[in-house]
Amino acid sequence: MTTQEQLHQWQELAQQLRVDSIRTTTVAGSGHPTSSMSPADLMAVLLCKYLRYDFAHPDNPNNDRFILSKGHAAPLLYSMYKAAGVISDQELLSLRQFGSRLEGHPTPVLPWVDVATGSLGQGLPIGVGVALAGKYLDQLPYNVWVLLGDSETAEGSVWEAFDHASHYSLDNLIAIIDVNRLGQRGQTELGWNTQAYANRAKAFGWQAIEIDGHDLTEIDQAFSAAVAINDRPTVIIARTKKGSGVKALEDLGGWHGKALKAEQEKQAITELGGKRDITITVDKPESQSQPAALGVPQPLQLPTYQKDKKVATRRAYGDALLALGTSQPDIAVLDAEVSNSTYAEDFAEAFPERYFEMYIAEQQMIAAAVGLQVRKYKPFASTFAAFLTRAYDFIRMAAVSRANINLVGSHAGVSIGQDGASQMGLEDLAAFRAVWNSTVLYPSDANQTAKLVAQMSDLPGIVYLRTTRESTPVIYDGKEQFPIGGSKVIHRSHRDQATVIAAGITLHEALKAYDRLKNEGITVRVIDAYSVKPIDVRTLHQAAKDTNGNLVVVEDHWLEGGLGDAVLDAFAGNSTTPAYKIPQLQIIKLAVRDMPTSGTPEQLLRAAKIDADAIVEAVKSQVRQLVGV
Amino acid sequence: MTTQEQLHQWQELAQQLRVDSIRTTTVAGSGHPTSSMSPADLMAVLLCKYLRYDFAHPDNPNNDRFILSKGHAAPLLYSMYKAAGVISDQELLSLRQFGSRLEGHPTPVLPWVDVATGSLGQGLPIGVGVALAGKYLDQLPYNVWVLLGDSETAEGSVWEAFDHASHYSLDNLIAIIDVNRLGQRGQTELGWNTQAYANRAKAFGWQAIEIDGHDLTEIDQAFSAAVAINDRPTVIIARTKKGSGVKALEDLGGWHGKALKAEQEKQAITELGGKRDITITVDKPESQSQPAALGVPQPLQLPTYQKDKKVATRRAYGDALLALGTSQPDIAVLDAEVSNSTYAEDFAEAFPERYFEMYIAEQQMIAAAVGLQVRKYKPFASTFAAFLTRAYDFIRMAAVSRANINLVGSHAGVSIGQDGASQMGLEDLAAFRAVWNSTVLYPSDANQTAKLVAQMSDLPGIVYLRTTRESTPVIYDGKEQFPIGGSKVIHRSHRDQATVIAAGITLHEALKAYDRLKNEGITVRVIDAYSVKPIDVRTLHQAAKDTNGNLVVVEDHWLEGGLGDAVLDAFAGNSTTPAYKIPQLQIIKLAVRDMPTSGTPEQLLRAAKIDADAIVEAVKSQVRQLVGV
Repeated sequence: MTTQEQLHQWQELAQQLRVDSIRTTTVAGSGHPTSSMSPADLMAVLLCKYLRYDFAHPDNPNNDRFILSKGHAAPLLYSMYKAAGVISDQELLSLRQFGSRLEGHPTPVLPWVDVATGSLGQGLPIGVGVALAGKYLDQLPYNVWVLLGDSETAEGSVWEAFDHASHYSLDNLIAIIDVNRLGQRGQTELGWNTQAYANRAKAFGWQAIEIDGHDLTEIDQAFSAAVAINDRPTVIIARTKKGSGVKALEDLGGWHGKALKAEQEKQAITELGGKRDITITVDKPESQSQPAALGVPQPLQLPTYQKDKKVATRRAYGDALLALGTSQPDIAVLDAEVSNSTYAEDFAEAFPERYFEMYIAEQQMIAAAVGLQVRKYKPFASTFAAFLTRAYDFIRMAAVSRANINLVGSHAGVSIGQDGASQMGLEDLAAFRAVWNSTVLYPSDANQTAKLVAQMSDLPGIVYLRTTRESTPVIYDGKEQFPIGGSKVIHRSHRDQATVIAAGITLHEALKAYDRLKNEGITVRVIDAYSVKPIDVRTLHQAAKDTNGNLVVVEDHWLEGGLGDAVLDAFAGNSTTPAYKIPQLQIIKLAVRDMPTSGTPEQLLRAAKIDADAIVEAVKSQVRQLVGV
Repeated sequence: MTTQEQLHQWQELAQQLRVDSIRTTTVAGSGHPTSSMSPADLMAVLLCKYLRYDFAHPDNPNNDRFILSKGHAAPLLYSMYKAAGVISDQELLSLRQFGSRLEGHPTPVLPWVDVATGSLGQGLPIGVGVALAGKYLDQLPYNVWVLLGDSETAEGSVWEAFDHASHYSLDNLIAIIDVNRLGQRGQTELGWNTQAYANRAKAFGWQAIEIDGHDLTEIDQAFSAAVAINDRPTVIIARTKKGSGVKALEDLGGWHGKALKAEQEKQAITELGGKRDITITVDKPESQSQPAALGVPQPLQLPTYQKDKKVATRRAYGDALLALGTSQPDIAVLDAEVSNSTYAEDFAEAFPERYFEMYIAEQQMIAAAVGLQVRKYKPFASTFAAFLTRAYDFIRMAAVSRANINLVGSHAGVSIGQDGASQMGLEDLAAFRAVWNSTVLYPSDANQTAKLVAQMSDLPGIVYLRTTRESTPVIYDGKEQFPIGGSKVIHRSHRDQATVIAAGITLHEALKAYDRLKNEGITVRVIDAYSVKPIDVRTLHQAAKDTNGNLVVVEDHWLEGGLGDAVLDAFAGNSTTPAYKIPQLQIIKLAVRDMPTSGTPEQLLRAAKIDADAIVEAVKSQVRQLVGV
């Protein structure tokens, strides 16, 4: 039973959260007070009675996790931190100022924020990832709480989360939808029809509880029911009023993302009973257990492949992942229903307890990877390179979250052959290069792939590996090393007249071109640029110097943003590095320019003019110019 | 009532579709026979009795539309075309061969294919777009049929479509889910639990009909009920067997995407009753009406802005869109619940009948745009640039569909200020450059924006316009022209020692830098590269020649893939164009390198080193080198 004393405490705290959300946004001159006010009662009860969180030790594995999916309600979150005594009133008022930890939307610059939010519809799928970690990896009894706005349920990713949470029986996941009826520009699709939300959630296998989100007793009962259930996730659908507590704002349009002016602020605070400085003690988790041991670390025994054998790099990825998983019990793997193509299936068979099938839901897959790394697991997530584009916003936001995740895209480029353009990843290098703090790797042989996979798990940030469908000859010895940021100069002589730079499938075309050119008396340098980002600037500069500035870059990717642009970029200066200067540097980019069709890999490489013949021709055009022909 | 004769015809046709799906994949040596066999009965009934389609005139506005969302069942689609008498048996057997129209997944290279499929979960949201056109723009009674696989219902985009179709009461939309239970690598999440599908669909406001997908009478009845309803969309949830009709394949794992060998093929065809060559006459639409007239074309009266006034380019976009919409009645506009930020709201108010609110569902928004252009409307779809990343796979596939759509991303770059990194589009130029046949525009002032918007609606392919949140000075006269592929040289003299290339917000920083440098006796050329793709190669080459190869590119975007790379690319050769050679070409790229935070636009431009000071410094570093200091 809820006591009068509790009710009073919660009510007072809720008003404080409202007042503080108003104060901080008014000082900032922007932000979202009204979106922060509607769920204030919900958050007051959560903080006072249900959340188990050790603010002094955010990494305590027993902590509940709280994700503010409606990230624009950041003022509310920061007001909760003030109430919990971990930020001062002074810091609270630094909201949105340059240099403040209190950004316009939450980021992990704050130790209690696990993931950045602000792109709507991401909090719940990430929560699924954390809850998967809690239930299946940590095997600890903490709960994962996610506060959503009602507008964001229009995002399909939210329903991917509903689907997967129920599939994985995530009874440790509790979603709260703040149904304040008003979106940015008007009424939401479903308005206050909480029953419609409840019907959808139930159809997806959840416990759904409809409440008045301003009735503290109903909130208490709903949270209690959510915590008690042990076979399904729970969603609490809370009917609320945007700007609740202040008549001039309550349930009115035109107040989204708008701070109050000084006079309005004064009136509002008065109406809310004035400023308060309540500090509450948030309960720490009762359990002080350690996460389940998922195995004992073993020395890494990477697979090696015999030279000249034909092995697809995706095959080597699967082998290396299995080896890495055997060595490191904190590796977890996800795939989007194509594990028999990406070869994540070998890991899945060996370590089913650390493998999560995400079905055809790439957004949920990336979000789950982000959630798993919140709990310090090292996720590898794979699908066709083309289909990672489905989750580009999640990858972008993972970078804002400073997440450490490993992504693998197979079936890259026209060289996949008959399946046609829809299945060809031709923009993945561009997309991943343009992700903050990313690493982009594109191996050309099986031994190289294994060595790169081994390095991936400990790299920070978003790490992307591009693999090839077709089997290609093993060209490196199993003992060779391939540091990130490096490259391999496969052919080099003092008489090199041009440099061919390639990676992945086109490296093999470059090697064929080398032979043909040599037969015609033209020697070229061949560089395997397996590390597309960071690219090996020094080796490229040296090659440009040594080969009269004649560079040919060839890639199985659109002309824009891929390896060709990475190589060009190596010769540009920036705010810290001067530009590279060499007389007559000339770079030819060979890349895919026309929409590919079906055909054999050979036919398609030829049609795209990225095969050995095209390379030979490009080199000759440079060498001809050089000798003045 | 279904007659025995009809049943026999349907049964025979279904067997033919199965046989042909097997034959064509066996000849190709790859492809998806079993996924084509499970919905064969459904398609036989559709073709014989329900589809209204004039194969001789695919553009007939009264035609029903059919979208094969499970694009890997292309052999079935092509077999249907053979049955309809529009492709020969010989052409059918060209599946997946280089040069054939019958690609591994359907593309609009075939006149009866409206949109490319093969990235799962896209057919239904695109169908929503076509159905919106049918019901609200064309106002014609045709139906839109979409065949989905069961696996693809894991994609959130499918639920965005369920949500929006019901919101817009699309009774002309009929989805058929082929519940064959088996995905690529195993059982789907829901298996044969058709009731679970039905519950979800009903909760989203659809009529849901569960049937045995191999019972022709049940199929007939379900289609009949779907066509009859007039307040809701219908989904038919058909329990089927993958590989149905052939014991060696039926409902068995391990047969996804696998062609039969010759001996297996022979046995299977025998079991299916042998090869057939039935041609059926598909009913043409009864109605021969014209689409509703949505207005009379008017002369275009673009807004103009007074020089030196401060106007945000997003504001000018809204004004120009309204003008364009007034002039062209075939313009339709979509927005993802931020129309008061993108300023699409002005169009929405003026032409509510041509405006579709897509709420916060960017995937559905892009898909709807693709659907609208299937019916020849000219869609403009807008949201924050950052959130267009949510739909990158849809944009990629729109290019494969050869769709003509206009996309507008507002709030680009760190210059949005206080909201923080989650809201900043910093990868949009990279992402859109790497889309086939795309145009990428980034205006710096209001008059330029208006002129570019006016050109967008008639450009083919994916056209992207990037707008700026902040108000910036109007620098161009309202009469100036801005051709696509062009640029504006704002400052030029014979003494230019370097060239600064900018676009959008950074152009204004470049102009400030120009003044400061001039005060110090350094004159620079300033180029407004408003057309990022195609970029104005000639003007860049001329500038490089005239200014000793000293180029500084500055952009409010990550370092990779944006304007800087576009400029670098202008100096690279390719398979058709030789590389540009100039002694001592040196390019400095100024772009965002560190994760931005909150702050004022000025603070963030400065912190990112893309403000006037950074430009001055970069130019000086080049000029110093030049004079040997």
